[in-house]
Amino acid sequence: MVKPWQDTTLPAHVRAADLLARMTPQEKTAQLSSVWIGADTEGADVAPGQHTYAARSAALDALLPYGLGHLTRPFGTVPVEPAEGAARLAALQRTVREGNRFGLPAIAHEECLTGFTAWQATVFPTPLAWGAGFDPELVEEMAQAIGASMRSVGVHQGLAPVLDVVRDARWGRTEEAIGEDPYLVGTIGSAYVRGLESAGIVATLKHFAGYAASRAARNHAPASLGPRELADVVLPPFEMAVREGGARSVMPAYNDIDGLPAHAHAELLTQLLRREWKFSGTVVSDYYGVSLLEEAHKIADGESRAARIALAAGVDVELPAARCFDPADPLPENLLDRAALRVLTQKCELGLLDPPQDDSPQKPAASLDLNPPHLRELARRVAEESVVLLANDSGLLPLAVPTGDGLRIALVGPLVHEQAAMLGCYTFPRHVGVHHPGLATGVEVPTLAEALHAELPGAVFVDDPAAADVCLAVVGDRSGLFGRGSSGEGCDAEDLELPYQQGELLDSAMESGTPTVIVVLSGRPYALGRWTDRAAAVVQAFFPGQEGGAAVAGVLSGRVEPSGRLPVAVPRNPGGQPAPYLAPPLARHGFPSTVDPTPLYPFGHGLTYTAIAWDAPHCDAPEFPTDGETVLRLTVRNTGERPGTEVVQLYLHDPVGTVARPEVRLVGYTRVTLAPGEAAEVHAVFPADLAAYTGADGRRTVEPGALELRLSASSEDVRHTVPLTLTGPVREVGHQRRMRCEMHVK
Amino acid sequence: MVKPWQDTTLPAHVRAADLLARMTPQEKTAQLSSVWIGADTEGADVAPGQHTYAARSAALDALLPYGLGHLTRPFGTVPVEPAEGAARLAALQRTVREGNRFGLPAIAHEECLTGFTAWQATVFPTPLAWGAGFDPELVEEMAQAIGASMRSVGVHQGLAPVLDVVRDARWGRTEEAIGEDPYLVGTIGSAYVRGLESAGIVATLKHFAGYAASRAARNHAPASLGPRELADVVLPPFEMAVREGGARSVMPAYNDIDGLPAHAHAELLTQLLRREWKFSGTVVSDYYGVSLLEEAHKIADGESRAARIALAAGVDVELPAARCFDPADPLPENLLDRAALRVLTQKCELGLLDPPQDDSPQKPAASLDLNPPHLRELARRVAEESVVLLANDSGLLPLAVPTGDGLRIALVGPLVHEQAAMLGCYTFPRHVGVHHPGLATGVEVPTLAEALHAELPGAVFVDDPAAADVCLAVVGDRSGLFGRGSSGEGCDAEDLELPYQQGELLDSAMESGTPTVIVVLSGRPYALGRWTDRAAAVVQAFFPGQEGGAAVAGVLSGRVEPSGRLPVAVPRNPGGQPAPYLAPPLARHGFPSTVDPTPLYPFGHGLTYTAIAWDAPHCDAPEFPTDGETVLRLTVRNTGERPGTEVVQLYLHDPVGTVARPEVRLVGYTRVTLAPGEAAEVHAVFPADLAAYTGADGRRTVEPGALELRLSASSEDVRHTVPLTLTGPVREVGHQRRMRCEMHVK
Repeated sequence: MVKPWQDTTLPAHVRAADLLARMTPQEKTAQLSSVWIGADTEGADVAPGQHTYAARSAALDALLPYGLGHLTRPFGTVPVEPAEGAARLAALQRTVREGNRFGLPAIAHEECLTGFTAWQATVFPTPLAWGAGFDPELVEEMAQAIGASMRSVGVHQGLAPVLDVVRDARWGRTEEAIGEDPYLVGTIGSAYVRGLESAGIVATLKHFAGYAASRAARNHAPASLGPRELADVVLPPFEMAVREGGARSVMPAYNDIDGLPAHAHAELLTQLLRREWKFSGTVVSDYYGVSLLEEAHKIADGESRAARIALAAGVDVELPAARCFDPADPLPENLLDRAALRVLTQKCELGLLDPPQDDSPQKPAASLDLNPPHLRELARRVAEESVVLLANDSGLLPLAVPTGDGLRIALVGPLVHEQAAMLGCYTFPRHVGVHHPGLATGVEVPTLAEALHAELPGAVFVDDPAAADVCLAVVGDRSGLFGRGSSGEGCDAEDLELPYQQGELLDSAMESGTPTVIVVLSGRPYALGRWTDRAAAVVQAFFPGQEGGAAVAGVLSGRVEPSGRLPVAVPRNPGGQPAPYLAPPLARHGFPSTVDPTPLYPFGHGLTYTAIAWDAPHCDAPEFPTDGETVLRLTVRNTGERPGTEVVQLYLHDPVGTVARPEVRLVGYTRVTLAPGEAAEVHAVFPADLAAYTGADGRRTVEPGALELRLSASSEDVRHTVPLTLTGPVREVGHQRRMRCEMHVK
Repeated sequence: MVKPWQDTTLPAHVRAADLLARMTPQEKTAQLSSVWIGADTEGADVAPGQHTYAARSAALDALLPYGLGHLTRPFGTVPVEPAEGAARLAALQRTVREGNRFGLPAIAHEECLTGFTAWQATVFPTPLAWGAGFDPELVEEMAQAIGASMRSVGVHQGLAPVLDVVRDARWGRTEEAIGEDPYLVGTIGSAYVRGLESAGIVATLKHFAGYAASRAARNHAPASLGPRELADVVLPPFEMAVREGGARSVMPAYNDIDGLPAHAHAELLTQLLRREWKFSGTVVSDYYGVSLLEEAHKIADGESRAARIALAAGVDVELPAARCFDPADPLPENLLDRAALRVLTQKCELGLLDPPQDDSPQKPAASLDLNPPHLRELARRVAEESVVLLANDSGLLPLAVPTGDGLRIALVGPLVHEQAAMLGCYTFPRHVGVHHPGLATGVEVPTLAEALHAELPGAVFVDDPAAADVCLAVVGDRSGLFGRGSSGEGCDAEDLELPYQQGELLDSAMESGTPTVIVVLSGRPYALGRWTDRAAAVVQAFFPGQEGGAAVAGVLSGRVEPSGRLPVAVPRNPGGQPAPYLAPPLARHGFPSTVDPTPLYPFGHGLTYTAIAWDAPHCDAPEFPTDGETVLRLTVRNTGERPGTEVVQLYLHDPVGTVARPEVRLVGYTRVTLAPGEAAEVHAVFPADLAAYTGADGRRTVEPGALELRLSASSEDVRHTVPLTLTGPVREVGHQRRMRCEMHVK
């Protein structure tokens, strides 16, 4: 006789509740736990505190009789061939199933920030590059493909995307974030979530919340944030990804917000996330995040108390391994049931309660290819769209002889031969591979030098700028973790000076007199003010992944039209951080301070090789009610001689409010690709809801009165201004408000 | 017949209410106004926005028939001889009195941050130097003397002290603040307030609140602050100065806090300040602060609306001149009456409602000396106590030949001949004098070179370190406003690199091989990590005023025993700011960040020329209730051969709480001066109230459990640890709590 929890005709929460009722407290607690097999307890660490905690965590054998909630990083811990990894995971799941009286397997989770973090899997560009692409549809397609490859080897959950809005680019994890505007982060991030979830993978939103606002951008440092900045800058991408993206998991941040650690933040994890946003998935701790409540935040006098605080706040699962959530230490029943029910419901949705279990990979092992052509093609497209042409006053680019025949090119800088300049810190090679000297990269990652040789077979490459027609000076970052690079988790910067004394390299190149193109391959923006007046051109890419070399080389040669736009501003000077572009008018451009935070290249900036004209826009209804919407129409036309892509950006300027607000913020955008001579009409449906902000009384409202929409080619390059007037009453908007300006090419 | 408001036997508020009832709305509004006579509308500015607003402000003649609330800066606008200034002010007051039907004079206010900001008045050390002295009694004595000299020329109110707790030393106004610890700022600041008020001068607490927490330390930039940081770090000095100091005026900050401008912040200006702290004085706007609500914060669509927002929030008086508060624009009656009653009550307390008015200076004009010997003596004592000996590993200091006979001293650096290295930006010479080329300084301000020549008459001073026995390399700041210096209002820094390329000067000095003493004369701490390993000694002074040269020279020679302690930490590296010492354990010392904010010299650090031993302390009652207190006794003894002063510092470490709290914070201190061989017993009465903090639920409570008191020579140099246990219930403490640990030499 089939028990209700096994009955696939019943809803997931009913089955989960039935199963829960049959469990002992120890079995319930085990569902909130994980095991990290193969994690180093000394030597290389991939999570902060790993050495301290891994040895003190529960072992698999001890948990097996009770069951197991999660399995931690079956592919991203040590290198394993995909087919072998899938087989090992399946075997491990059999062990888990056979160990508990309900035959339940675990949820296998893995990182997937820049593609599936597994050996031999396609390495995609880093999220900051997705931000530069301003192309949610492509990101969704990419995420779906990533999700499908994870599903094919038995993984259920992916620990991505990072929805932290960049607040201080000195932060080492800037490369993992999408940008410094909540609307951009929310739309691109939600697209990633939709893609991953559509492949059946549970997407995990992180880091909830305020992690990117840590003091001086130091990893884990406290975040000084008030409720308005939290509501209007930090939280909207998470809300969008929950409400519109359908994310099924959330990971709290390591830091505290105004003293309260995110892992203990009931107002965020329960009141806001569940009661207001109606989130019904699981909250999984960041690695050792529950332990940190005891050992670093000092808000718990022991691991038992840390578990209770986290559980009460709304953390359901302790990752990466059970330490504080201990079956031998009975947790309060109501809290335990709440969390276990969520985990079991998710397992049910994933099919893990259904008999018979099939843990074997969906494809025969022999055919497992985690880097197939269609993923490489997606990686190429994302990379190509992400390259930003920052300056080209000289017109030197694209390189005058497209095929490069006879062109003498000086290729200088330590990164030209460096794979680490292409790969974010969560790629397998940089995250895990570095601990296995001699291990092959697993996928082909041409360096920029290799890509340029392939791109320009007729060019002559030399080392000395004085002997060249043009110099390509390549500077930027090596990714790594915890000090093993200049960008990446734990690799924070004291300022935005180019690392590794690469500024001196640019000085030399400029002094050579040879026309010099600065190529920045980095995980964060760096101050370029010292050189740009003398540079022939400047190109910026953000860790563009395994196909990134070809993408950058293609933009330089003109084979690829540059179409990226800055997701974070590039500063003029190294100091004076933080200087986010979201800033109110007072002190935004210096006076009354000697420090002028005006960037060298603003948020949204990026050039093309063609010329694009923006006709005067038309607005259907410049006056509309506070619960209404209006439609803008704008024609853009390619008046140049090459194809090109414009990113039409819509910014909101609100002249008067009850609190100080950013001068402008992004409320819509769309990419428009045009052949020479071609024109296209862009449509934008702007709902009044997008003018909502959190006012002096703490309520989020849309107010009647004047507004200004700015149709812009960057946050500072306004092409047309559309004055609007909202009519009717002040309207409070809740978590049902519209969060999106639908904008597309007609 | 005497009307009630003229009846000196009645209480001030009764008289004020009677007068108010006789006034028209125009007359009431005029009491909320001021006039700034002589303020430049072009050229030199001493307040941000002066050019914009001064020309658009109400003129004296227009206001006279209605009366006048304030007179702005009668001495600190253009240079005037004290006697002449007093006579002019008296004449102006007669004009004011005779202009209105009640014969009311105005409140004359003036700056007094580093002494009375008047020509020929004693120039005291800047507040950061008071902080270094750790001597509230001396600061009180100084402030009383400053107040008496202001009163003697007809001034009623002083726009000091600055109670902003330093949060990011890049801030140009760091020199105006007392330090980075709320207890130090509160105790020193309250002492200043008591002194000023005891002389009959209304003290003005500024800037209320959060100004020092502006983003990237840029002047006027937004402050990202949550309610806990506000309550536990930013506000306590203000509370102490209101409740214990008896301050009668408060000035809001220019910035916004989490979006809400301080001038519009009813929760701060009314709910907290008046209802909870029972403040009954006046709230006066910062200069043009009401206008900024319209023109910069963009929360008012016009000056009339800006006036209403400010008035409703709790701003009573618009400074420096009436613009938004316009008698021709009737304000809401209840709000107008509320503010006018406060101003009239204060005028009554100041005797300004009493007939007959006597506006003439209290002393005959001929005898007016604003720089008399007893003030100079106080300036000398404050300066001497403020000099901090940071390092002396070599034992080179005091200079081996005390009289300097035959000693060849290389004296290098642009500041050795620079008065601006001694004077803060609110001193008359730097604030006003700089706009009057050729004007005499007004008081003698020996440069360090002059002071050293006087101090060491037998020494030979040379320019070249290679030709000297010892090199004194003098680096630091020139004070100034809005870019006219490297430190001061509006002179923010991108990082804490020594300005004016002075680092290269230190490089050269180090390379010379001559033993080099680094002498820093500055308005903020600068990164010294690049040189200290090679320096023979390091001495730090913070704009020590007109007697500062002699004080620094005296410490170098040994005539003065060094006794200052750092009120702000000195960082190792220029970047990575902000890095306040008040930080929770997580990420406090680097990992998991590559940026280690550990300072080179921590808060509270400072050496002596002698050796002082700390005996084991005795604690009367290591266990006491959450509403109790305990007494510590500690004997310190001078075991060296010279006299010396120890600053015994008491820090609180709270092992476990409900939110992340600073690892340590200062809760008590006292100076102990000891002859060689002398011992003294220090007493400290520690009330449990000082362990209170704002917890996860937003309430300020004292919790039972373990505490640790650390008797320390600096925030990092712990000499003895005293474990304590609080017993009894969790106790919520309000604004009657004890805020002070009485600590003194028995």
